[in-house]
Amino acid sequence: MSTTQWWCREDLRYDGDRLTFAGRPVDDLARQFGSPSFFYHADRVLANIRRLHSAFEDVGLAGRFRIYYAMKANRFPPLLAYLRSTRMVGIDACSPNEVLHAIACGFRAEDISFTNTSLSPKDFRRLSRIDGLQVNLDSISAIRRWGELAPGATIGIRVNPGVGIGRAANQKLAYSGDRTTKFGLYREQFDEALRMAERFDLKVDTIHFHCGCGYLSPQLDILEHIIEEALWFVRRCPTTRAVNIGGGLGVPHAATEEPLDLSRWSQLLAKHFGSTDLVLEVEPGDYVVKDAGILLLTVCGNEVKRSTRFVAVDGGFNIAVEPAVYGMPFAPVPARWRPGPPQAVTLAGNINEALDIWATDVLLPPLEEEDSLVLINAGAYSSSMASNHCMRGDFSEFLLID
Amino acid sequence: MSTTQWWCREDLRYDGDRLTFAGRPVDDLARQFGSPSFFYHADRVLANIRRLHSAFEDVGLAGRFRIYYAMKANRFPPLLAYLRSTRMVGIDACSPNEVLHAIACGFRAEDISFTNTSLSPKDFRRLSRIDGLQVNLDSISAIRRWGELAPGATIGIRVNPGVGIGRAANQKLAYSGDRTTKFGLYREQFDEALRMAERFDLKVDTIHFHCGCGYLSPQLDILEHIIEEALWFVRRCPTTRAVNIGGGLGVPHAATEEPLDLSRWSQLLAKHFGSTDLVLEVEPGDYVVKDAGILLLTVCGNEVKRSTRFVAVDGGFNIAVEPAVYGMPFAPVPARWRPGPPQAVTLAGNINEALDIWATDVLLPPLEEEDSLVLINAGAYSSSMASNHCMRGDFSEFLLID
Repeated sequence: MSTTQWWCREDLRYDGDRLTFAGRPVDDLARQFGSPSFFYHADRVLANIRRLHSAFEDVGLAGRFRIYYAMKANRFPPLLAYLRSTRMVGIDACSPNEVLHAIACGFRAEDISFTNTSLSPKDFRRLSRIDGLQVNLDSISAIRRWGELAPGATIGIRVNPGVGIGRAANQKLAYSGDRTTKFGLYREQFDEALRMAERFDLKVDTIHFHCGCGYLSPQLDILEHIIEEALWFVRRCPTTRAVNIGGGLGVPHAATEEPLDLSRWSQLLAKHFGSTDLVLEVEPGDYVVKDAGILLLTVCGNEVKRSTRFVAVDGGFNIAVEPAVYGMPFAPVPARWRPGPPQAVTLAGNINEALDIWATDVLLPPLEEEDSLVLINAGAYSSSMASNHCMRGDFSEFLLID
Repeated sequence: MSTTQWWCREDLRYDGDRLTFAGRPVDDLARQFGSPSFFYHADRVLANIRRLHSAFEDVGLAGRFRIYYAMKANRFPPLLAYLRSTRMVGIDACSPNEVLHAIACGFRAEDISFTNTSLSPKDFRRLSRIDGLQVNLDSISAIRRWGELAPGATIGIRVNPGVGIGRAANQKLAYSGDRTTKFGLYREQFDEALRMAERFDLKVDTIHFHCGCGYLSPQLDILEHIIEEALWFVRRCPTTRAVNIGGGLGVPHAATEEPLDLSRWSQLLAKHFGSTDLVLEVEPGDYVVKDAGILLLTVCGNEVKRSTRFVAVDGGFNIAVEPAVYGMPFAPVPARWRPGPPQAVTLAGNINEALDIWATDVLLPPLEEEDSLVLINAGAYSSSMASNHCMRGDFSEFLLID
């Protein structure tokens, strides 16, 4: 059973009937450190980053790319300090507090790219105090405010190519597309934005866009179309030196999904940017940390209600919102694969809300009370979005470094 | 304009062009206390509770009802201490931490009714240490565990009537209904549950059910049907002394909705329980605090993208998730009604996520940067579910007592 699982890899696999993560038996982790707990494997994070570096280098873009890790995916301080120590990524930050937190974890302001919408006067003042920060602005009023605070500065402009991407027709993850979103400047307002920048002697050196979340290989054709649309803005802004294509690189959530074909991805970038002298920037979040993290839970109950078998666990959607809120499942994997016929179960969290279901009708081996299980792909947008709803917000986090 | 708003009431209305809340001009609150801030009006909370008391008393149920405030709706400590001071409500708690927090805010264990699913061994141990707590259990394994810890105790059983209620066909808020949910014991397992209780000499004195969220008058017929289904369990358990009908009493979120007809509601309860000697228990959360709370925000920008006018504010969905996650809108109301033709605007929060939109295509008077506005009906399931996503989790809370 074990070796055929779609998610199986060297640092996440069964050794006999025992699940191991980062070379450690998961039931040992459970016994020592308790649940609910997130475990992040530093070496998997590093492998994900190295794969990105190689993809750029393999198409001749060595020295012409920058990777900014989207820290909103996971800001666990040891993880950020580890990322800094690799010297292979900077930080994509989206609030003044995130900028300070990244600096607190060892990053230099020069390593940080800031992009967000709906900035308050206080946000602008706080950002303007930090020397060396790259700031990408996404509205005409933001350019005006920044110009007033920092005339003569170098800025980026976040644009909206008007084309969206995403794994599913999930409106919740629609950053651009037919429907007008709050993000970025559209073509209709771009000339006015450039005039506003000029009025304050702001030099626009970066064109930034972001067009969706979790894309895999089937979406690469759309990405190419988006890049073509975005080049309209680059051509219109001759001071551009860098193009930031945002994040959105996804990882598989289910057996039916294939990993993103990263060499096709980087070939696509090389095709459009290889012959220019533009620097390429990318802001992966999920791609760096999602599959490097697991959420360890303990079985509290296993019984049939009507004809549905419910397995209850000691953590709920408030500490990892993606399955319940975004419809992105985390596959449940038992720490120990007990003998016996698999059963179809519904995995229920401990929050008093109807949406607090981890998985429905999933086939699992027999599970007993106090057994441990993990939810895989829980490394991104889990702890960083956790709430204390029902005062069930307690959990631990551990960075595992080999 | 102002007096015709559907939400207008004595403590939330325009005085000329200035919005007042709890008798205070909202722009004064903004100037003094900043944003984002939640303000809760204690007197509105009290009025909501008194209305519930009157509804019971008007149908001859005086002395035969108990109101347990569902603290998961809002656990702001001053609010809980205020509720305790009224001596008109107890607490509905759904985690051991909630029980301790209620006690920390002045409630006695005897005032607290605990109900939840997926309890861990640690949860059971913590609950069992507290004398006088009412505990309602919702699975056979939970009855067994409790019996092992507290043989001879008095308990409640949460049942599932198999019929659901709710304002909309919102699966996220489906607590019971055709689809089997994790909540409560169904008829099929009820006899086994009673046998398990008997095995540990547990006396079942309460039948508890909860069947949905936010019901208004149009759903009262379904509520009656649910009560009829629930009476099957009561008849089968002759030691029952109290019936807890859960929460779910809603308040209007939009102009098209009418407030819940509370006298029809209590007449319905009297019809089924008036001739019995059962005590009626109810667990309102929304009904007590939702319309007593506003979220104050500040306008950061107002500009057209493509042909959509976006008004940006300094707070996002992470501090009040209902509009984005549950599709329950909070009407935006400007602190000052500026002259000029109303404009159709999309109200955007400051989180770097596509779903972070407060309202779409809503008609508002002209709004300028640094104007204040409030989102009404923000008193429940907002701060209690807030996260620090994007490190944008800072907000203040204020209880206003006249």
